[in-house]
Amino acid sequence: MSSQFDAELNEVRARLLEMGGKVELMIADSVKSLVERDSALAERTICTDAGINQMEIEIDRKCLHILARRQPAARDLRFVALALKIVTDLERIGDQCVSIARHAIELNREPQLKPYIDLPRMADAAGNAVREALDAFVRGDAATAVRVCREDRIVDELNEQLQRELLTFMMEDTATVERAMRITAISKFLERVADHATNIAEMVVFMVDGKDIRHSIA
Amino acid sequence: MSSQFDAELNEVRARLLEMGGKVELMIADSVKSLVERDSALAERTICTDAGINQMEIEIDRKCLHILARRQPAARDLRFVALALKIVTDLERIGDQCVSIARHAIELNREPQLKPYIDLPRMADAAGNAVREALDAFVRGDAATAVRVCREDRIVDELNEQLQRELLTFMMEDTATVERAMRITAISKFLERVADHATNIAEMVVFMVDGKDIRHSIA
Repeated sequence: MSSQFDAELNEVRARLLEMGGKVELMIADSVKSLVERDSALAERTICTDAGINQMEIEIDRKCLHILARRQPAARDLRFVALALKIVTDLERIGDQCVSIARHAIELNREPQLKPYIDLPRMADAAGNAVREALDAFVRGDAATAVRVCREDRIVDELNEQLQRELLTFMMEDTATVERAMRITAISKFLERVADHATNIAEMVVFMVDGKDIRHSIA
Repeated sequence: MSSQFDAELNEVRARLLEMGGKVELMIADSVKSLVERDSALAERTICTDAGINQMEIEIDRKCLHILARRQPAARDLRFVALALKIVTDLERIGDQCVSIARHAIELNREPQLKPYIDLPRMADAAGNAVREALDAFVRGDAATAVRVCREDRIVDELNEQLQRELLTFMMEDTATVERAMRITAISKFLERVADHATNIAEMVVFMVDGKDIRHSIA
């Protein structure tokens, strides 16, 4: 294997980690903009997304270039094929964060319905899952990837708990409906972010072991 | 190019179309199970998803095999790389349909809140978008793909209209909140299905022209 080829794979690895870091910050900032009622931060988070979209296009190009010129085999091939899939997940997490930030801006215009306790916990867990899934990918670490898949239920449970709580608000007082609906939407977006991390982690197990655990871990 | 290689590409094409057909049926059936209050159909739709998941794994394998053994170049390479991405979108559409079917089962236990007019229209539009995006993919037809991207706003608008209508229901009568929330969720799932179709279509334009229109069509 040529050192030029190694350098190209490392470049994909580095760019994916960089993109993951930016996405992780978007997750934290979109929820922080709600908790701290900082709509300027929400606006900045929305603007960040253009850079994420650009990174998706660039990483795709690099991967196609490697497939065309280097004809990678076995594990290297699986690495590049999965990089193509993972970059799509990261890009879509960026989209979820934009949606969260948009709802935050609207919620920040109104009196706060309730203290935001669970949303920051969900954002933390989802951001950690993204980072760990990507780390597992670049290190080829299946054990970490399996753990990310298992921990997805933490975010799922927080989401379900929050959905029930908000339903009670709405049923007790119709004046809360619009705000509660927005908080519900944010909670679901965070649940989807964690799902993307799980998708990445499942694919990593496949890359490392050549074994497909998608659709088999509960 | 060997005829064996052609046969392998055609096999991926055929399997993707088959998977797309199954997913299209899941979209129609999940909403039909609500409109016709047919929870047995909803259960069958949920069961279909296991087959979709299996197809994802098989198509991924075929694509990796082609990349490893055939070293495709230029347009063939872009075809295989995008097949890897598209199969993920199709699999996730299957997941959305399962979620729709689960909400349908719960809604079918309760008196019907309102006539379902917009949801079947959204399901039709989303199903058509999936079929057209896949047709554009297998035929390498950029014009159709661009049209699919543009038509996404039809589903977006129906979704927004329905969200507003359901909000009014909830604000007028708290007894409607639980059912309205479920219908809201179904509407959002259909909007995401259409988004997946748009994602596929955007990638098709890239495959055909080598031009990336992702993040540039409003």
